[in-house]
Amino acid sequence: MKKSVGIVVEYNPFHNGHKYHCIKAKEHGDVVVAVMSGDYVQRGEPAFIDRWTRAELALKNGVDIVVELPIFYSTQSAEIFARGAIGILNLMNIEKLVFGSETGDVKKLIERGDLEEQKEFKVELKKQLKEGHSYPTAYSNTLKILDKTDELDSNDILGVEYIKALKFWKSKIEPIAIKREKSGYYSEEIKDGIASATGIRKKIQSGEEIKDVVPDTTYEILKESLEKNSFAKLQDFYPFIRHRILLEKEKLERIQDIEQGYENRIYEAAFSCKEFESFFEKIKSKRYTQGRVQRILIHILLGIEKKQIEKVKEKIPYIRVLGFTKEGQNYLKKLKDEEVEVLTSLKNIQKYLEKDSLDLLEQNEVASKIYAMVNPYEDRKIPIIIK
Amino acid sequence: MKKSVGIVVEYNPFHNGHKYHCIKAKEHGDVVVAVMSGDYVQRGEPAFIDRWTRAELALKNGVDIVVELPIFYSTQSAEIFARGAIGILNLMNIEKLVFGSETGDVKKLIERGDLEEQKEFKVELKKQLKEGHSYPTAYSNTLKILDKTDELDSNDILGVEYIKALKFWKSKIEPIAIKREKSGYYSEEIKDGIASATGIRKKIQSGEEIKDVVPDTTYEILKESLEKNSFAKLQDFYPFIRHRILLEKEKLERIQDIEQGYENRIYEAAFSCKEFESFFEKIKSKRYTQGRVQRILIHILLGIEKKQIEKVKEKIPYIRVLGFTKEGQNYLKKLKDEEVEVLTSLKNIQKYLEKDSLDLLEQNEVASKIYAMVNPYEDRKIPIIIK
Repeated sequence: MKKSVGIVVEYNPFHNGHKYHCIKAKEHGDVVVAVMSGDYVQRGEPAFIDRWTRAELALKNGVDIVVELPIFYSTQSAEIFARGAIGILNLMNIEKLVFGSETGDVKKLIERGDLEEQKEFKVELKKQLKEGHSYPTAYSNTLKILDKTDELDSNDILGVEYIKALKFWKSKIEPIAIKREKSGYYSEEIKDGIASATGIRKKIQSGEEIKDVVPDTTYEILKESLEKNSFAKLQDFYPFIRHRILLEKEKLERIQDIEQGYENRIYEAAFSCKEFESFFEKIKSKRYTQGRVQRILIHILLGIEKKQIEKVKEKIPYIRVLGFTKEGQNYLKKLKDEEVEVLTSLKNIQKYLEKDSLDLLEQNEVASKIYAMVNPYEDRKIPIIIK
Repeated sequence: MKKSVGIVVEYNPFHNGHKYHCIKAKEHGDVVVAVMSGDYVQRGEPAFIDRWTRAELALKNGVDIVVELPIFYSTQSAEIFARGAIGILNLMNIEKLVFGSETGDVKKLIERGDLEEQKEFKVELKKQLKEGHSYPTAYSNTLKILDKTDELDSNDILGVEYIKALKFWKSKIEPIAIKREKSGYYSEEIKDGIASATGIRKKIQSGEEIKDVVPDTTYEILKESLEKNSFAKLQDFYPFIRHRILLEKEKLERIQDIEQGYENRIYEAAFSCKEFESFFEKIKSKRYTQGRVQRILIHILLGIEKKQIEKVKEKIPYIRVLGFTKEGQNYLKKLKDEEVEVLTSLKNIQKYLEKDSLDLLEQNEVASKIYAMVNPYEDRKIPIIIK
């Protein structure tokens, strides 16, 4: 069997930094398996471009297999996002996990993961959260108090979560941190043709040229969307979110990430605010940061409830393949009789999946239908195959 | 106290035929009280124009008091629509009910009402419905079998329901049928400046001139909407309806007018159809006629459930005044200490209304917020007063 390496991606959209990541990953294995967020991403937003187009870009730029990270993991906090992504890669029999990192120091990330699992860390973090701090602030305060003062950057924070997830799934996958020399995740700066996805989305929205920071294949595929300006944004979904808040008031407290009492604030803001901006201002706070609020709104839009997340945190319900290369196809053929269904088609899936998993898959497909109401795309029944 | 006369209206939009109806009503009393459908009408559609604009048109054209018929009555079958409208007029202490009628023969309508309440009629009707006929067909077949072969036209059918509702509420209101000489409810024909509301809506949508068939006041108010072409249509709400069907599958069977099994048909059609037209075609049938399907869709859009309708059929939860003239104001002042709250403002209503009624009122207001997401309008806190 070919040596395989796994990566966790969003490709929102695919850019030169991602290409570099792919090249680095290939140095560690023959087959690159990417777990990619579907139509909704971890920042709590609809993906800028639909899942199939993003899968195609990945396959044309060095990835061999793209599997979808379903909404139950993709729009969650870093911990659950990592839990799902690593859980899937683990079931895909990956040998190495290659991820971008500001420090490039796996040992340090492992230490941090261990620290976080210590009782005194958990106690202090809980205390900080109770005081009303947002998670990032509470986390950073906890580190300071425990005298481990160096804060991690966004990729390293995710790296720690990957490592904790590897431990959770009792995985043998070896984590490899590759140092990100270029611009950080949220930076808008461009250095030597590398910009962050956030930076690129902003450029596109303000009509700036992006040819230099994305591979030619990305540019070709984006061109059509660029001309139509058909990119999905969270605010485009506000009418749906608002309708749902107004009609499903009693369901709000069951929605993932909503803490007791917050449902009233959301309801009142939705009742009075016609515009997304004023609504969003009303529900943001020290405790409910932008990212968290955005994730909550996506959970409302898609009907993602706390009890569902509790379940999927313990067990991967299914794996769906969005596309593969010839190399990837050979790898998939050898991946038989694993503990979870690896779906390359949705035909007759009721034969392979249990009721709970079927329901989750259906909810993920419904989420894509909802996505396509704002950013229309042709859904596919079978994977993309790149020869 | 002034002699008062009640009318049941939708004014979707107000036209010369409505004006004629008003003039006729005034022949029977000094104060005209209109119960008017709010933002959603009996055909199972959003009102073409918002409730406040339509109330204003009514007050400028002979009506003295406009009260809102809430969604729990306004988007229902003729029976429940009439039950609510007459229930409200009864509580408003009206002496006479003046309604348009093709026959103009109240005696005949009373006889028909009595017939419908006989056991043999009910048994046969039920049998016809069980055979899969739509309500109108089952009704007409039942009449034929019981040898009362003359079918009634739409206004007379509603007239029979008014009369049955008067009986239900043990009302002393005297029903008066005024013969509609001109074009019928659904006719698109224009005779001497009178066209039906349906005809007028079609004309507006195809860009035809409507000046001749509406009072000048209507025309003035419509002009702005005509220029912006801002009229609400059911298909504009399809994205919301579809989102709700996809996410609230398990709630569908509780929705008013949905019979067992139909929820699956609706879900499957919504899952596969991006466009309203194809969706609608898939869910129509002999049993589920256009009007009924439209009402069901509005119930889904607004979350109107069977158990709610069972309750409001027995008791009017509140009465909300949308506007009045000087004459109307005097009448309202004398209407104290009735069995139901007559609200002229929504301020401090929690003092006057019970929890159940408050919930219903809130749901009706949410329905208007949803309406305004497609057809934006400025909501009012206090009634329109025309001196």
